[in-house]
Amino acid sequence: MKPDLTIVKIGGQVIDQDRLLNSILKEFAEMPGAKILVHGGGKKATALSHQLGHEPLLIDGRRITKKIDLEVAIMVYAGLINKTIVARLQSHHCNALGFSGADGGSILSEKRPIGEIDYGWVGDIKSVNAPLIDLLIQQDVIPVFCALTHDGKGQMLNTNADTIAAEISVAMSAQYNTQLVYCFDKNGVLENVSDDNSVISRINPTLYASMKRNGSIHSGMFPKIDNGFYALKNQVNEVVIGGINILSQDNQNYTTLTL
Amino acid sequence: MKPDLTIVKIGGQVIDQDRLLNSILKEFAEMPGAKILVHGGGKKATALSHQLGHEPLLIDGRRITKKIDLEVAIMVYAGLINKTIVARLQSHHCNALGFSGADGGSILSEKRPIGEIDYGWVGDIKSVNAPLIDLLIQQDVIPVFCALTHDGKGQMLNTNADTIAAEISVAMSAQYNTQLVYCFDKNGVLENVSDDNSVISRINPTLYASMKRNGSIHSGMFPKIDNGFYALKNQVNEVVIGGINILSQDNQNYTTLTL
Repeated sequence: MKPDLTIVKIGGQVIDQDRLLNSILKEFAEMPGAKILVHGGGKKATALSHQLGHEPLLIDGRRITKKIDLEVAIMVYAGLINKTIVARLQSHHCNALGFSGADGGSILSEKRPIGEIDYGWVGDIKSVNAPLIDLLIQQDVIPVFCALTHDGKGQMLNTNADTIAAEISVAMSAQYNTQLVYCFDKNGVLENVSDDNSVISRINPTLYASMKRNGSIHSGMFPKIDNGFYALKNQVNEVVIGGINILSQDNQNYTTLTL
Repeated sequence: MKPDLTIVKIGGQVIDQDRLLNSILKEFAEMPGAKILVHGGGKKATALSHQLGHEPLLIDGRRITKKIDLEVAIMVYAGLINKTIVARLQSHHCNALGFSGADGGSILSEKRPIGEIDYGWVGDIKSVNAPLIDLLIQQDVIPVFCALTHDGKGQMLNTNADTIAAEISVAMSAQYNTQLVYCFDKNGVLENVSDDNSVISRINPTLYASMKRNGSIHSGMFPKIDNGFYALKNQVNEVVIGGINILSQDNQNYTTLTL
């Protein structure tokens, strides 16, 4: 029988608010079994860009990664946020080890081709180095991934953290029973975005499609749900979306994706 | 018989000038055998501080690490420089994996006590996690360390890269025949600082003491030489100081430290 592995992705307010970050890191550290953490960038990258006099460019609501945006992402994601998280997990006796996709050749990507939009230095994932991750997990080392990958030719690339979490989960599913947990500042996918108690407990592709049609789902949820369904279709055992209590044993308030 | 392990520390102009960095990384990638890279910060951290409107404080020529200096160090050392190096080594088929001292609990330090000078967020090394480093080396993973450590209580700390290289070399000497290589922008310890060909081929503690007395040695060399002698006194087999050609097989122009 395969051992269990939980892949937890944290992002948004959970990164930005120190109190929420400390809370989830403590829960993560205490969670038994093999685990991997993936974190997004929050607002710190935008704040640093502004301090450097740069305004990140959005086209149709999509972020464009220019050279300076990539440098800021590397400094903030792989530097400040990753090391803050790793040092705090260490203080909870969780032997965390930070990764960008370049480290250990862990996540290889290729620069997104220029289509209608030139997304800039953005990478689409080609492969995950599962054997190295597995080796570390077996030594009770906890990999902590930030939202950066590399192209194998010396170029770092920006990659969505929800996608990284899904691709790592898929890659590890050959060796493990995998559970993918998307943790953010809402308690799950909400029926009414202004009511944090209106969590939809189960979403399948049919319900998702109808919710998208009638506009009753916040577009910010699309990457998590799309990546979640992708993961389920590729041997990941369970995908859940929830708030900062999602790692608590007694929490029942979250969204489960099903096919 | 113990296997060989080379620990290479790069810093100064070698980090700042892209051409020099590419050159040494290519040499490092091609070097046979087990190896570890340690890098300093160069001028990029100071440049970022200035961009953020902060002037780093020096007291008696010693850098003081305030909270913002530590954040900048984490962004530049663990972020920008470490990931630039790791991604480039990967492009040379060298399976590099970046480390701060927090990652994998690799280097534990304690905040330097406030004496005549308060150095701020600076850490003095207490221990190195040699078994984890050894495990990775045995998998042909190449650890790449930046000049940051942690105190085990969630706090990152700034630590001199020359010292990190020496302490890693000492810690690995139980399992390996260790060679510590300090690589910078001069060809070695110079008799005449303005003549790059005046390399002193061997320095022992007696010669070093007399050179310090008569002021014929640049104070910038003290950390490398002090750390080098410390390493030799603690089972490191060989310590050399040289320029960007130091990793070339046919280079004979460098300084060897002897006890």
